[in-house]
Amino acid sequence: MSKPNIAVLGSTGVVGQEILKILEEKDFRFNSIKFLASARSAGNEIGFKGKKYIVEETKPEAFDGVNLVLASAGGATSKAFAPEIVKRGAVLVDNSSAFRMERDVPLVIAGVNDEDLKWHKGIVANPNCSTSQLMLPLKPLHDYAGIKRMVVSTYQSVSGAGKEAIDDLEHGTRNKFVKYPINFNLIPHIDSFLENGYTKEEMKVVNETKKILHLPEDVKISCTAVRVPVYTSHSEAVNIGFERPVTPEKAREILSSAYGVEVVDNPESSEYPTPVEVAGKDPVYVGRIRKDPALENGLALWVVADNLRIGAALNTVRIAEKLVETGLIKS
Amino acid sequence: MSKPNIAVLGSTGVVGQEILKILEEKDFRFNSIKFLASARSAGNEIGFKGKKYIVEETKPEAFDGVNLVLASAGGATSKAFAPEIVKRGAVLVDNSSAFRMERDVPLVIAGVNDEDLKWHKGIVANPNCSTSQLMLPLKPLHDYAGIKRMVVSTYQSVSGAGKEAIDDLEHGTRNKFVKYPINFNLIPHIDSFLENGYTKEEMKVVNETKKILHLPEDVKISCTAVRVPVYTSHSEAVNIGFERPVTPEKAREILSSAYGVEVVDNPESSEYPTPVEVAGKDPVYVGRIRKDPALENGLALWVVADNLRIGAALNTVRIAEKLVETGLIKS
Repeated sequence: MSKPNIAVLGSTGVVGQEILKILEEKDFRFNSIKFLASARSAGNEIGFKGKKYIVEETKPEAFDGVNLVLASAGGATSKAFAPEIVKRGAVLVDNSSAFRMERDVPLVIAGVNDEDLKWHKGIVANPNCSTSQLMLPLKPLHDYAGIKRMVVSTYQSVSGAGKEAIDDLEHGTRNKFVKYPINFNLIPHIDSFLENGYTKEEMKVVNETKKILHLPEDVKISCTAVRVPVYTSHSEAVNIGFERPVTPEKAREILSSAYGVEVVDNPESSEYPTPVEVAGKDPVYVGRIRKDPALENGLALWVVADNLRIGAALNTVRIAEKLVETGLIKS
Repeated sequence: MSKPNIAVLGSTGVVGQEILKILEEKDFRFNSIKFLASARSAGNEIGFKGKKYIVEETKPEAFDGVNLVLASAGGATSKAFAPEIVKRGAVLVDNSSAFRMERDVPLVIAGVNDEDLKWHKGIVANPNCSTSQLMLPLKPLHDYAGIKRMVVSTYQSVSGAGKEAIDDLEHGTRNKFVKYPINFNLIPHIDSFLENGYTKEEMKVVNETKKILHLPEDVKISCTAVRVPVYTSHSEAVNIGFERPVTPEKAREILSSAYGVEVVDNPESSEYPTPVEVAGKDPVYVGRIRKDPALENGLALWVVADNLRIGAALNTVRIAEKLVETGLIKS
């Protein structure tokens, strides 16, 4: 199969940079590659695989001859350029929330619901970071015991909110976090509020989880999403009630052989995942696996993963790999 | 009624210092006061209400003539001296976990279960900080709708772990947090692990809540307790399933008039409690009040309070006030 012509859209952002790193690490094969960004960043130099590239401004013509677009430039940019990309026959793998809940757009975690790639119509959506890291451990547990209800409380790092947020934590500034400081603080508010009192971030966990795992509508999920003063890696306390019993021992066995998951769970020697240790790594780490007495057939987990990798860039590249491997990209 | 002779045990610790501050703020009336600590701290000077006091070493004879002991010196010290205190007819208000689950020791949050003070036998226990801040909002909600199940995820500040922990966060050292750094990190491990995979801290929330609210045994509670890089105030994501429906509006109304509780809940203007803002204040702050679709008759809350105040020192002094007011101290 021929190698694709790639465009990386939003290549100068936090996730864009991580995408480049992962393309290099994986030695992703391509015929040509170009780097696109806003007019503000156009003209900048980007080093990639030992070569220098000039960042080009994102314009419809920039997608001429491109087969595969890896985008992390925000919802507005993705929405603006998606028709131009699709019109040219390229496939857009999009990190924004713009298309995730569209019926004709597959929302995919590689290794979880790859079969959904088959019905793409030019756009494949990458889930929100707080959802993404849950899918790899939840999928095999759901297959075994059937998720019935789930309560998720997140502890989300600032890198999920971009460069300005990272700077705020580093320098104690208040540019991204204007109303409340993030330093030595917690902010129970990520993305905007909806009428039901939940934030969009919280409803993403609810709705994206249902779409990716093809859960029945009567599965009940709630989420509290909180920003914490951590640079990288999101952590989540997850409490699940299943249809059928699943012991902590069985869950540990299932998760130990699950794709993309690593179990770190030895209370006796104080071993459990923490965000600092997990940053920069590919797997989703699961620890604190125990019975949850509050829920029928309950299980409690502590799930930590690098939000820039499995939560964004790594899954983008994995989706691209699957698309290329299975001939789902025209070239 | 006569004013008590007070001894403050563990007076040089983080909670001990907060107790002194609150005794001053409230202008707590006493006949005499003395400050006790370990041999290491004995001889130090303590300023209190404009006077200087010399810290005395904790010895049985130090409790001669004392009516009221306010203790925050750790479980071992409380256990060692409790018989000596009780023998002398004094009442011990204890912050440690040593006696909390003893059948003949009332575990009290002032304003929640004051009636339990009546059957004290010389010792009254102050709940663990992560439990304490839940009781003031939970009590009136439980009275209205009946708690059936509850999932709690905590975000606990370092001051709950003492001076060394505060220093670790301030200086990036690893004295209290030896295995994992706390700076820009999260540690899902507070107090030691039990055989069921839960930590003692987590089981304190479960068991102390049941004891204080006199919950039936079939009420189901689970907790994940996590240390976060915040100096002061514990935060908790709380998901409750009730026996009977309670709307967010009704909950807001109940909590708005509840003793010791303040509702901060205006999503439209990004208002909700954060630990930095709550530090140093007396009320338990509740925000993010919303329906929890994951649980029958479910309600989700975000509860933040100063762990040194309502979580420890403030409740200690409030208990002391109640004991004095109701003549439950011999003098």
